[in-house]
Amino acid sequence: MKNTKYTISLNPKSKISEDIVEKSIDKFYNHLFKLTEEKLNDVHFVIGGDGTLLKALNHFGFKGKYVVIKDAGSLGFYSDFDNLDDLNNVKINSIKEEFFYPLSVLVNNKEYFAANEVSLVNVSKVINFSMDIKQHMKQNCRSSGILFSTKLGSTGLSLSCNGPIIFDEKVYYFNLLAPLLFAHDENVVKSGVISNNDIVKIDILNEDATLVIDGNVVFNIKSGDKIVVTSSNVSFSLLHFNEKTSKKRYHKIGGGR
Amino acid sequence: MKNTKYTISLNPKSKISEDIVEKSIDKFYNHLFKLTEEKLNDVHFVIGGDGTLLKALNHFGFKGKYVVIKDAGSLGFYSDFDNLDDLNNVKINSIKEEFFYPLSVLVNNKEYFAANEVSLVNVSKVINFSMDIKQHMKQNCRSSGILFSTKLGSTGLSLSCNGPIIFDEKVYYFNLLAPLLFAHDENVVKSGVISNNDIVKIDILNEDATLVIDGNVVFNIKSGDKIVVTSSNVSFSLLHFNEKTSKKRYHKIGGGR
Repeated sequence: MKNTKYTISLNPKSKISEDIVEKSIDKFYNHLFKLTEEKLNDVHFVIGGDGTLLKALNHFGFKGKYVVIKDAGSLGFYSDFDNLDDLNNVKINSIKEEFFYPLSVLVNNKEYFAANEVSLVNVSKVINFSMDIKQHMKQNCRSSGILFSTKLGSTGLSLSCNGPIIFDEKVYYFNLLAPLLFAHDENVVKSGVISNNDIVKIDILNEDATLVIDGNVVFNIKSGDKIVVTSSNVSFSLLHFNEKTSKKRYHKIGGGR
Repeated sequence: MKNTKYTISLNPKSKISEDIVEKSIDKFYNHLFKLTEEKLNDVHFVIGGDGTLLKALNHFGFKGKYVVIKDAGSLGFYSDFDNLDDLNNVKINSIKEEFFYPLSVLVNNKEYFAANEVSLVNVSKVINFSMDIKQHMKQNCRSSGILFSTKLGSTGLSLSCNGPIIFDEKVYYFNLLAPLLFAHDENVVKSGVISNNDIVKIDILNEDATLVIDGNVVFNIKSGDKIVVTSSNVSFSLLHFNEKTSKKRYHKIGGGR
């Protein structure tokens, strides 16, 4: 499955044979070299849905160039191609590289990365925590938690929590989850847009919180723990081979095309 | 009232005598030169509330360096000083320049600037308009209108419409005002964060809309009119003389200090 030129990540539940996948991608890859003069080393081909992309990103340390090909049944939010056959028909007018910066989360000196989002959440109790926004604005919060989202994540869970679509990879977004409303001097900033090079510090004052990264529970954060969120300075990219494919993603939000 | 070194903008309703204002500022200005080696030419002193700042910005073409001093009774959201007497007591540890980019609105080839926000709104009818977000995402909208906000405006009207606080001057934000919810393929992106160098185009399809800039009605936009919104590439700045003053603004949102 490995090649010096590219790698292939396949959803383990996929019903397509690995042999067919490899032949299709090899053909596409040679086609690509004939049509463009661009060096395309170390491209990661991901065949599957967004979960398969997240797994591949994790595997390759949230670095590199990715091409996502939809597998049968998956939503394929980030797919440039609806299936393997599409690789044969693609007319490459220009290759556009779209960059994304994962979030970096430092918990007690251990760093985690998130492609989409990071949340600290307690589904039954109100969490008390203090928040320092870019060493500029300090506030106490009382809420069910907090959600941080990248540009990539802004069309997902963050959108469901009424977040904006982020069209700029140089910022990230946060919002308090179900903030209590009666406090006068707390929860002042309920949602914010932060530059990638700025940090948000969180000190859990009481109640435990579950740390969830890209939909996976990581562990429980306890009272007294300190969390620092910022954007990573390494980035990954999605490769788009047509004007059209880089634009259609946003239309999938509304169920349109 | 004019001086080669600085200008003074005073709220016309102010009860402070112009003479006292000028003497205080002259004293402060000389004090400043003794304490710092920074060149501070063409500083605009604004004595009054945020309305007086907006008037001064308008007068000086949304360019230059501003120091805002609160007048009695005004909220003074952007004031570094609560009154003229504060100019005597200030301990200058470092001068921090905080930059802001106004919005540029092009309506039928005429350009307007906005420090805080721009809205297109119809309070009685639903406006139909098409929207092209950074030549990347096109959608049809049906709503009471649309609101664009800068970082400066993000603590004002935009916040009242559930917008995030923007901590980064390199982006602007928009949200649809009361978007209709039943449409399948419309109003897909209800709110978004855009890089300063990207544009949003709006074509009014039917119903008139009122163009409001920084709280002032400019004129009515008619069906067929085209509007282009982006960030201006000229900027203005607020001068902060103390760490504390540059931070306390956000705390005014919640009524705290």
